[in-house]
Amino acid sequence: MSKKVKPRLSRGLQDYLPQQMIARQRMIDTIRGVFENYGFSPLSTPAIEYLEVLRGSAGEEATGSLFHVSNPEEEELGLRFDLTVPLARVVAQHRDLPRPFRRYQVASVWRADKPGAGRFREFTQFDLDSVGTKSELADTEIIAAICDTLTALKVGRFRVRYSSRGVLNVLLTYADLPESAGTDVFRVLDKLDKVGLEKVKKELTTGYKDESGDTIRGVGLKEDQVAKIEAFLALEGETRGAVLGALTNLFAGVEGAEEALGEVTRISDHLHALGYGDDQVQLDPSIARGLAYYTGPVFEADLVDAPQFGSVFSGGRYDDLVSRFSGQAVPATGASVGVDRLLAALEHLGQGQERKTTAQVLVLNMDQDLEGEVLALTWELRRAGIAAELFLGGSRSPGKQLKHADRCGVPLAVLYGSMEKEQGIVQIKDLDAGRRKSQQVESREEWIEERPGQREVPRGELVATLRELLGAIEQG
Amino acid sequence: MSKKVKPRLSRGLQDYLPQQMIARQRMIDTIRGVFENYGFSPLSTPAIEYLEVLRGSAGEEATGSLFHVSNPEEEELGLRFDLTVPLARVVAQHRDLPRPFRRYQVASVWRADKPGAGRFREFTQFDLDSVGTKSELADTEIIAAICDTLTALKVGRFRVRYSSRGVLNVLLTYADLPESAGTDVFRVLDKLDKVGLEKVKKELTTGYKDESGDTIRGVGLKEDQVAKIEAFLALEGETRGAVLGALTNLFAGVEGAEEALGEVTRISDHLHALGYGDDQVQLDPSIARGLAYYTGPVFEADLVDAPQFGSVFSGGRYDDLVSRFSGQAVPATGASVGVDRLLAALEHLGQGQERKTTAQVLVLNMDQDLEGEVLALTWELRRAGIAAELFLGGSRSPGKQLKHADRCGVPLAVLYGSMEKEQGIVQIKDLDAGRRKSQQVESREEWIEERPGQREVPRGELVATLRELLGAIEQG
Repeated sequence: MSKKVKPRLSRGLQDYLPQQMIARQRMIDTIRGVFENYGFSPLSTPAIEYLEVLRGSAGEEATGSLFHVSNPEEEELGLRFDLTVPLARVVAQHRDLPRPFRRYQVASVWRADKPGAGRFREFTQFDLDSVGTKSELADTEIIAAICDTLTALKVGRFRVRYSSRGVLNVLLTYADLPESAGTDVFRVLDKLDKVGLEKVKKELTTGYKDESGDTIRGVGLKEDQVAKIEAFLALEGETRGAVLGALTNLFAGVEGAEEALGEVTRISDHLHALGYGDDQVQLDPSIARGLAYYTGPVFEADLVDAPQFGSVFSGGRYDDLVSRFSGQAVPATGASVGVDRLLAALEHLGQGQERKTTAQVLVLNMDQDLEGEVLALTWELRRAGIAAELFLGGSRSPGKQLKHADRCGVPLAVLYGSMEKEQGIVQIKDLDAGRRKSQQVESREEWIEERPGQREVPRGELVATLRELLGAIEQG
Repeated sequence: MSKKVKPRLSRGLQDYLPQQMIARQRMIDTIRGVFENYGFSPLSTPAIEYLEVLRGSAGEEATGSLFHVSNPEEEELGLRFDLTVPLARVVAQHRDLPRPFRRYQVASVWRADKPGAGRFREFTQFDLDSVGTKSELADTEIIAAICDTLTALKVGRFRVRYSSRGVLNVLLTYADLPESAGTDVFRVLDKLDKVGLEKVKKELTTGYKDESGDTIRGVGLKEDQVAKIEAFLALEGETRGAVLGALTNLFAGVEGAEEALGEVTRISDHLHALGYGDDQVQLDPSIARGLAYYTGPVFEADLVDAPQFGSVFSGGRYDDLVSRFSGQAVPATGASVGVDRLLAALEHLGQGQERKTTAQVLVLNMDQDLEGEVLALTWELRRAGIAAELFLGGSRSPGKQLKHADRCGVPLAVLYGSMEKEQGIVQIKDLDAGRRKSQQVESREEWIEERPGQREVPRGELVATLRELLGAIEQG
């Protein structure tokens, strides 16, 4: 105990203090609610997996940034970097799981990447997937559930943009490119939102030097091929129907076009029938995503009023992941919520949860002789479903106790002293109304003097009055 | 993709499949509800901490079983083995936190111990603590909250047993032992429930050889000292008052007795006043716990009808933990829930959650031509708050689809085919009623033939009927 240890965290790690956690839990509970309503069930897997399970299934980037873990048996272990690989392992390992298997998982993942602003080495992912279904209705319902989730979270306007690998494969045919060119071409198209059309075009042909002098190697396409891709990327329309019409024209007579466009058309039609209109879901041919992994429809969501946070939901169909373990191809589709991005966006939009504590009421505790009665009062509130904290710090000063309420963010305080007992009343203070002044109060009399947001009620009306005040606070 | 990877987990690690996770989440949500009602707020800390933060603060046992983690900077890191050390780090690091700081945290912890039946290397802890309060009311309210939690979880009869380090220190004086003997003596007393009185007495004196031939070293107490300790351990009474009376007699005239007994008496009186009677909370002088760590009241809870699961809640006051980081002693008290033990006990008591999936209804999907209408029906249920899964597997056979419902544990199935459409009806099947037979059904007609738990309702009454059936299922 003699040498003091510095209280600190390693790079890229962070604590979530109550104010942040209350908002996170509320958001996660909302998302859980939507997906449970769709019949997705929770799954949990350990943080520690064999390195051979983690390696090789996702891109090299992810596996290069694994945290290694050592156990007494000196096995090769690591911390999971996503929730999709553990899902694939679970499906291959627990062979008696029903198919389709529909699960969600919300858990930490770890990546030993270089930390930066908003980039952490341990962060939360919320994933949902349907494993064992080829039906495009499974993709459709994930898009619908994304819409329902964003609506439930009150993010304001959002757009879920979708396309499919099928459409992109037709683009390859249309531009006289072999299927094998897909990996490179789609990887470059995925940068469109980030770097813009001109750089995408350069990278598709000869490459270029970027601002920091790094060479971006070109893919080596010919000019007319790039022109065709540009025509494809330029397609747009006010509605999904208009985009489909333009795509149909562009791809007229191209092999595979009918099938690929049929798939995205049916998804659009189903969504329309269910009430997910063009304001919520858009067909955007330029959505490419990491297509080494995806095999069918792909989608991502962003917020119209907070586009700077990027995509807050993304996913698509991946039919080959489980085969790494089982040898069998198992069709699957799913999406991942960017919990931290979405929270940051909600906060930016003023939809963040403002509460800093779960306590709704602080019961002041000034008079040792009345401690029994104040204790009983606290339990009366708790048993009425009002979250109450009884002040248990060292000070008996109402000013210091109110300051505590202020620091914790408790909205209401209740004072019951000998004078209140004598008169059969309780004092209630709305701290938001009087927040600025509360720090200076040093005596009970002064507290009563200073009136903003304060009222006296008969002792018997305490619970009813608090409920009324909390109801009003809740509604803003 | 060529070489197959074996889907498996390292020793002591496990997946929680939906059936287990639904029960866990429900239990955790209940516990959260009680502690939020008491004004405890959620906190989250990273899994990875510096080894120097993790080391030395708890017993050697825990630190010997750390999982080490390596990061790119090659720092000395490990996975947390409990939630108390991270709490102490947080309190020392975030100096602007309010005091008292009342938090709960529910998270995984890791211990590289030898795995065994029910002993895992990664498991969930649920901790709650009040930091920065010396008040015995803080200990009192944790005992009360434990009672409320166990009541909310419907565990049947339980007992929270408590004592205090103060009482045990008086025992040392009474038995003519120096305070420094406490560590050894209390460690041995802590084994009373496990090994019985005779072995405790032997260990307190000369030691003994246990069944496996290992030598249990003796503490070296004299016979008359052990006789006094035995008299203390033999104290019992029907009520807390009776035990207090017996303790008062035994310790008459012993230095420090009045103060120590005053503390446990006041806790008892407060609990009585709040309605926590002798049936729920017992004063048990033999409760010792790991007292190198505890400094005041200590408590643990077990289930009267499932004692074999051991203590499902335990904790106490520890006033020195934060000082390792800050140099300041910060008074604190808290408890930890044994999530896995409590779940196992609930299951044993038949109070376990039986649900295997979140879906309440499986909508069969037999006829491609009706897919749009079946889709609309599914969304009608979801929008009415009924968790619905639309069958999206490969088979169109109602028998196979019902088998899927059966494997998932979905309680109700809904069938809407061309005949039902024509008649304006829907078929509803209660799967629990007809579970055994459902596997053999191969056609829609046969499904309708086979009648247990089946009914036809007008299409417009579907939602109301399902709500009614689900309400009945919910009530058992």
